[in-house]
Amino acid sequence: MTARYIGTLTPVSKALELLAEKTAPVREAYRVPLRDAAWSVLAEDIHAPHDWPPRHKSAYDGYAVRSSDTPGRLRLVGEALIGESDVGFSIGPGEAAYVTTGAYLPEGADAVVPEERVRVENGYVIVDYHVEKYKNIDPAGSMVRKGQLLARRGQLLSSLDVAALYEVAVTEATVYRRVRTAIISTGNELILPGDPLWTREMILSGKVVATTGGLISWFISDYLPWVEVAEEILLPDERESVAWWIKRLLPHVDLILLTGGTGPSNIDLFYQLQEELGGEIVFRGLYVKGGRPTSAYIAEGKPVIGLSGYPLSALHGFIRLVYPYLRYLGNVARGAPPVPLVKARLTEAIGKGRPRPIKVRVEVGEEGYLATPLQSTYQLSSANVGLVYADGIAFVSDREYGPGDVVDVLLIRDPRGYRPPMP
Amino acid sequence: MTARYIGTLTPVSKALELLAEKTAPVREAYRVPLRDAAWSVLAEDIHAPHDWPPRHKSAYDGYAVRSSDTPGRLRLVGEALIGESDVGFSIGPGEAAYVTTGAYLPEGADAVVPEERVRVENGYVIVDYHVEKYKNIDPAGSMVRKGQLLARRGQLLSSLDVAALYEVAVTEATVYRRVRTAIISTGNELILPGDPLWTREMILSGKVVATTGGLISWFISDYLPWVEVAEEILLPDERESVAWWIKRLLPHVDLILLTGGTGPSNIDLFYQLQEELGGEIVFRGLYVKGGRPTSAYIAEGKPVIGLSGYPLSALHGFIRLVYPYLRYLGNVARGAPPVPLVKARLTEAIGKGRPRPIKVRVEVGEEGYLATPLQSTYQLSSANVGLVYADGIAFVSDREYGPGDVVDVLLIRDPRGYRPPMP
Repeated sequence: MTARYIGTLTPVSKALELLAEKTAPVREAYRVPLRDAAWSVLAEDIHAPHDWPPRHKSAYDGYAVRSSDTPGRLRLVGEALIGESDVGFSIGPGEAAYVTTGAYLPEGADAVVPEERVRVENGYVIVDYHVEKYKNIDPAGSMVRKGQLLARRGQLLSSLDVAALYEVAVTEATVYRRVRTAIISTGNELILPGDPLWTREMILSGKVVATTGGLISWFISDYLPWVEVAEEILLPDERESVAWWIKRLLPHVDLILLTGGTGPSNIDLFYQLQEELGGEIVFRGLYVKGGRPTSAYIAEGKPVIGLSGYPLSALHGFIRLVYPYLRYLGNVARGAPPVPLVKARLTEAIGKGRPRPIKVRVEVGEEGYLATPLQSTYQLSSANVGLVYADGIAFVSDREYGPGDVVDVLLIRDPRGYRPPMP
Repeated sequence: MTARYIGTLTPVSKALELLAEKTAPVREAYRVPLRDAAWSVLAEDIHAPHDWPPRHKSAYDGYAVRSSDTPGRLRLVGEALIGESDVGFSIGPGEAAYVTTGAYLPEGADAVVPEERVRVENGYVIVDYHVEKYKNIDPAGSMVRKGQLLARRGQLLSSLDVAALYEVAVTEATVYRRVRTAIISTGNELILPGDPLWTREMILSGKVVATTGGLISWFISDYLPWVEVAEEILLPDERESVAWWIKRLLPHVDLILLTGGTGPSNIDLFYQLQEELGGEIVFRGLYVKGGRPTSAYIAEGKPVIGLSGYPLSALHGFIRLVYPYLRYLGNVARGAPPVPLVKARLTEAIGKGRPRPIKVRVEVGEEGYLATPLQSTYQLSSANVGLVYADGIAFVSDREYGPGDVVDVLLIRDPRGYRPPMP
């Protein structure tokens, strides 16, 4: 038995290019109220529908005045609170009105005096200095001009974007539907974790808790809000049942991820499925270490990507290949939430090898992050236990690294705080 | 009307200290199956329950052999797949067995030859080189020794930690219950966003879409998995209804966050509530700009923290004060997911002022992040629209900054990718 189905290992950039050639990004888009557009990708440019603010707005709690009246003793004629549009009075010469932050100024007023800068006596406000025109207000049109470009097609709208756009009366948006994925984990050795004692017995007898699918699912839900995991399924290494599921899922999703079933020994299953489904191979094996069996084919126009069954190797293949591919499928040009990939300086050398994940401890130095590779025991590809000692995963390329060289590190936790001593 | 309830502004570190003096972290802890411990905080140290692996495990797909037999022509006596414990045979002199990655080696074997390094003929494996003892295997006890410290009290367990711990037969954990919070937004001007046309009319007439509570809730769900938002409520600026809700919530949560009702003009409501609830003031007003009204009191032993009603000011107060306080309440010593707070070099000067949030555009330079403050129009405290042009929020302290100085920036999106031109 040999790893006969793995061909020439394909570099990640080439694999991505091939996938993009053979598949198209999501095209369906919907017009939705803005609140429902949060964490979706814009399918249109958004321009300001109005000058903003449409009228002068107060930037402070205080008194709306005519600047030319100051300094002076001004008669209080009313108040204008945030949320009110038409207060039914205007500010004439020698008059003032109480206003709250964000309130429209009554007609006539062109400045605000903060409440802590005045005295109030018998219905009069005493302002003892000259207040400049437009002082302490947001003048009409000062923030945004009608027609101004606010956001572009391809931008993932965050909660903050939604708050900002609502402020200037943008209330709907056209967004792409989310990319739909399914994750199928296969492996006769896999168990669902349950009762702790039973689970421990199972593990000691050689069984493995199915965690890889859940890990990919967690990464998607935390960092890829434009992607939806429609199904997450655990199946035995049986061609028939996996094929049955893939056929049912293909019409409903944009991408199927298979974890397990791509190790050299069971790569067979992945390609047996490809033959059964009449799939077109995109690439066989990725030029990386830890994720090498990552492979892809197209069946019924949809990509099926096989990832390793090992958590860290699967995550490596996912972040290197599937993450950018999902940006492509989802039309994401800007605004994805920042994946915690940081630059860190190595404290020790790392030898040559294929691009691979290296578990590292991370410290925050004066100049930025410092990464120290874990002892080699914890670097074995089949050992994930080192993760509990690691703060991050360095993604190194195939060159040699010396101390002081900079690498990309995926922080898996905040590196501030204590670290348990390495045994 | 003056901001009479704001006293001497308290620096953040002092405010935190006062809160910690008057309140205790969560003490309740539960023993749960490990799968249910993901994203909870450990209430105990975890030690390895067994040597790991408990027996030699294969690190490759290949052939289990006695190293002393190599090179040689070895008789195949069976196979051992991952997930199998007792294969019913052992490896005697001159024998070998097929094994998959992660499988326990049959008794007698002490090394593995990868399948691509052998020839197989008529039930025999031909190994043409000497294989060293323990080559391509994870020897018994090589990864972890029984009793070894794996994780400590105060560690937030991630999905990766759970995968790693299950691997070595840790199957349960004692974790603290999550910190429970409630978020109450108050403001007569606030509306829930709905039908886009109606919402736009409301905004133009001065109403404001309630987004601040949702923003805090989003931040918690994305970055503070040890915290649960038990309730998120919108109420008018009416003392009675807010007091009614606070009284109902206090017995059930560890912390109440009030947004709005703390601006200088309506700070009254916050303190009227404090008086009605017999609350003990912790601090009145924070030494920051953008979040200044942030205040706190203790009622029935529980903290009630008032945040600004403005999204960005509320987020500022939250990240500076509430985020570290929630780490304290939740017993988090290590392992919180990395909030995307990065170090960035300023490309322009920033003048003196109170600690405050500054909207910035962020670029990725050779040496790290570069932050450029947005034009002042977009920095007004009541304007959030600038956020759509920003990639991050710089948290500056009260000193002066020159170009090249380093500031902390909360990335609000991945700064890679296009940025819309500033108007």
